[in-house]
Amino acid sequence: MVTIIGDGQLARMTQQAAIELGLSCRVLAGAPDSSAAQVTADVVLGDYALEEHVREVSRDSDAVTFDHEHVPNRFLDALIDEGVNVQPQPSALIHAQDKLVMRKKLRELGAPVPAFAAIESADDIAGFFEAVDGQVCLKARRGGYDGKGVWFPATVDEARELVEKLLDKEIPLMAEKKVALVRELSAMVARTPSGEVQAWPAVESLQEDGICVEAVAPAPNSTPEILAAAEQLSRDIATELGVTGVLAVELFETTDENGQPEIIVNELAMRPHNTGHWTQDGCITSQFEQHVRAVLDRPLGSTEPTAPVVVMANVLGAAEDPAMPMHERMDAVWRRFPNAKIHMYGKDWRPRRKIGHVNMLGEDPTRTREQARLAAKFLETAEWED
Amino acid sequence: MVTIIGDGQLARMTQQAAIELGLSCRVLAGAPDSSAAQVTADVVLGDYALEEHVREVSRDSDAVTFDHEHVPNRFLDALIDEGVNVQPQPSALIHAQDKLVMRKKLRELGAPVPAFAAIESADDIAGFFEAVDGQVCLKARRGGYDGKGVWFPATVDEARELVEKLLDKEIPLMAEKKVALVRELSAMVARTPSGEVQAWPAVESLQEDGICVEAVAPAPNSTPEILAAAEQLSRDIATELGVTGVLAVELFETTDENGQPEIIVNELAMRPHNTGHWTQDGCITSQFEQHVRAVLDRPLGSTEPTAPVVVMANVLGAAEDPAMPMHERMDAVWRRFPNAKIHMYGKDWRPRRKIGHVNMLGEDPTRTREQARLAAKFLETAEWED
Repeated sequence: MVTIIGDGQLARMTQQAAIELGLSCRVLAGAPDSSAAQVTADVVLGDYALEEHVREVSRDSDAVTFDHEHVPNRFLDALIDEGVNVQPQPSALIHAQDKLVMRKKLRELGAPVPAFAAIESADDIAGFFEAVDGQVCLKARRGGYDGKGVWFPATVDEARELVEKLLDKEIPLMAEKKVALVRELSAMVARTPSGEVQAWPAVESLQEDGICVEAVAPAPNSTPEILAAAEQLSRDIATELGVTGVLAVELFETTDENGQPEIIVNELAMRPHNTGHWTQDGCITSQFEQHVRAVLDRPLGSTEPTAPVVVMANVLGAAEDPAMPMHERMDAVWRRFPNAKIHMYGKDWRPRRKIGHVNMLGEDPTRTREQARLAAKFLETAEWED
Repeated sequence: MVTIIGDGQLARMTQQAAIELGLSCRVLAGAPDSSAAQVTADVVLGDYALEEHVREVSRDSDAVTFDHEHVPNRFLDALIDEGVNVQPQPSALIHAQDKLVMRKKLRELGAPVPAFAAIESADDIAGFFEAVDGQVCLKARRGGYDGKGVWFPATVDEARELVEKLLDKEIPLMAEKKVALVRELSAMVARTPSGEVQAWPAVESLQEDGICVEAVAPAPNSTPEILAAAEQLSRDIATELGVTGVLAVELFETTDENGQPEIIVNELAMRPHNTGHWTQDGCITSQFEQHVRAVLDRPLGSTEPTAPVVVMANVLGAAEDPAMPMHERMDAVWRRFPNAKIHMYGKDWRPRRKIGHVNMLGEDPTRTREQARLAAKFLETAEWED
């Protein structure tokens, strides 16, 4: 039995994958109707921020894993001391939790990272602002996601003021040089405690307001060199950091001084990741199945795609929830696109909330993207964009 | 919410498919650790042969469906009278429950069936034995599966004796002319209450001792005419009988008087079927997802395969359970075949019991069959056949 600390859609889809392996998951859920708890027989209600709840849900588990990075590492260290099999371990997880620790470690490994600095005072940011010609991205070291915890101050005064305000709130900070972005890529691998690593083809991902809205596999219009470099980088990071389970390396593609494409690491996530949802329908082994196999230290599966192009488009809650019920929206999408694979998370509508996604297999990236986007937008708004 | 009456692997895999649609299933389970109950949040413990339990599990369901054909139709008629949405309905189900009713109906529809007769006395079987030159297959009209409830008496005396014994036990009987079998095929469709029908490519299925051990999709070495005839036949049967959800039409392929291939209907099953498990990994829409969509009267999905060949091989309990634990057997299979999709049902070992299956995608039927068989046999015996 595998314990998942977390009750969101990642836990839900991991449970779905575990079923076919003859397994089942136990989840630590904040509410009995949370996304994962709805579909799991073995639910422990509790709070991942309380050590006793984390200990209780971990009892007798073959492995304990996560659908987020927010469990305090001291709880996990204590569990490991007690003999619990926690995967990934805090020594790896810290790099997905603290952006400054991650940046330092990656620089040490020789991985491509932007200029960065610890920010512990207004003077720190002023100095950094000058050093990078005002191209500043200020980040909370911990806890940010989906565009939260990231700021782009336009002037040095604005930067100073922001830093003072955030430090007053005791938010640890770092700053990076803004990357002249061409696009975002994501390179995903899974690694077992024994050291087996399997990589999926790198994808192009599209963000809107900091939220992933689309992933295209494999990343179209890429040089073989960039795809190979992205894969090698994610393999190296997984191995060097001792990651177990699924690792997503979010990448910026930019151009170097010679105008050649170049990749820079943006973030790391040590769990199934939004940019890997396409593997559910477009790959021999999905990221969810692979994560379960990896945390149990079992052999990994083939990551071969089953179609020339696979596009994942997220379904986000619209500004207003359309009058048409979701099941009717799904039906309309299926009528128009009988090959649309709709995944819903059992979540209520809320603006910009991730409530589902659509996977679409195809031959041509442009056409398949268009179809996936039309489908996802209809699920959001009950209107066809075309 | 969809209620499934039944707690076996078909219910388990239907639940798995429902999860991705944002749904969940309620199951009527005989035991809390049954295959489906292990992986379902909403479990009602009870007995499908007790009307009050069937009524209780059906309460507030959007649709009530089945993973077997054994629920008494009078319970279902009563539920329908009370406004419950039962799919498929008893008027269709009766043809999957009573082989004599099925034979009569198919003959009336002009579908290809062997010579058959109701058997209500020893004289009946003696007459039939003579009429078909001793090529007799005696069947219990109800309840047989996996080779149970089928007899092949060699002499008229043996046939008389057998019939007397079975009628004494109050087992209603029928007899058919044995078919000079070339091989078995299975043609599957799904149909909605509104009348939409989608067919999967027909498969070749292999039985050992009356138990399905393998299915190859699409059926290799077939003429286009036979594949088209099998598909049309399954569409017609679904429509004429008013089947809803998944229908499997098990077929015998034989040769007509001119030596041309010909198909004859063997059995009908109105639920996801063993010969459709390949669709989980080899088709845009699996039989389990399609069944859920169909019983809810929602648009059906594409049945396009995602590989040139898909082979499903069943994992049956061996005569003795090997010392090597199942998870180690799975690991050995994954090491040798990283593309093997292993599905386990959470069932304990018992000789000849269906405990899992392997799906394998490939290019060449012979090679893919060999791989799938090797994998399944290793899971059974912990030994490589080659």
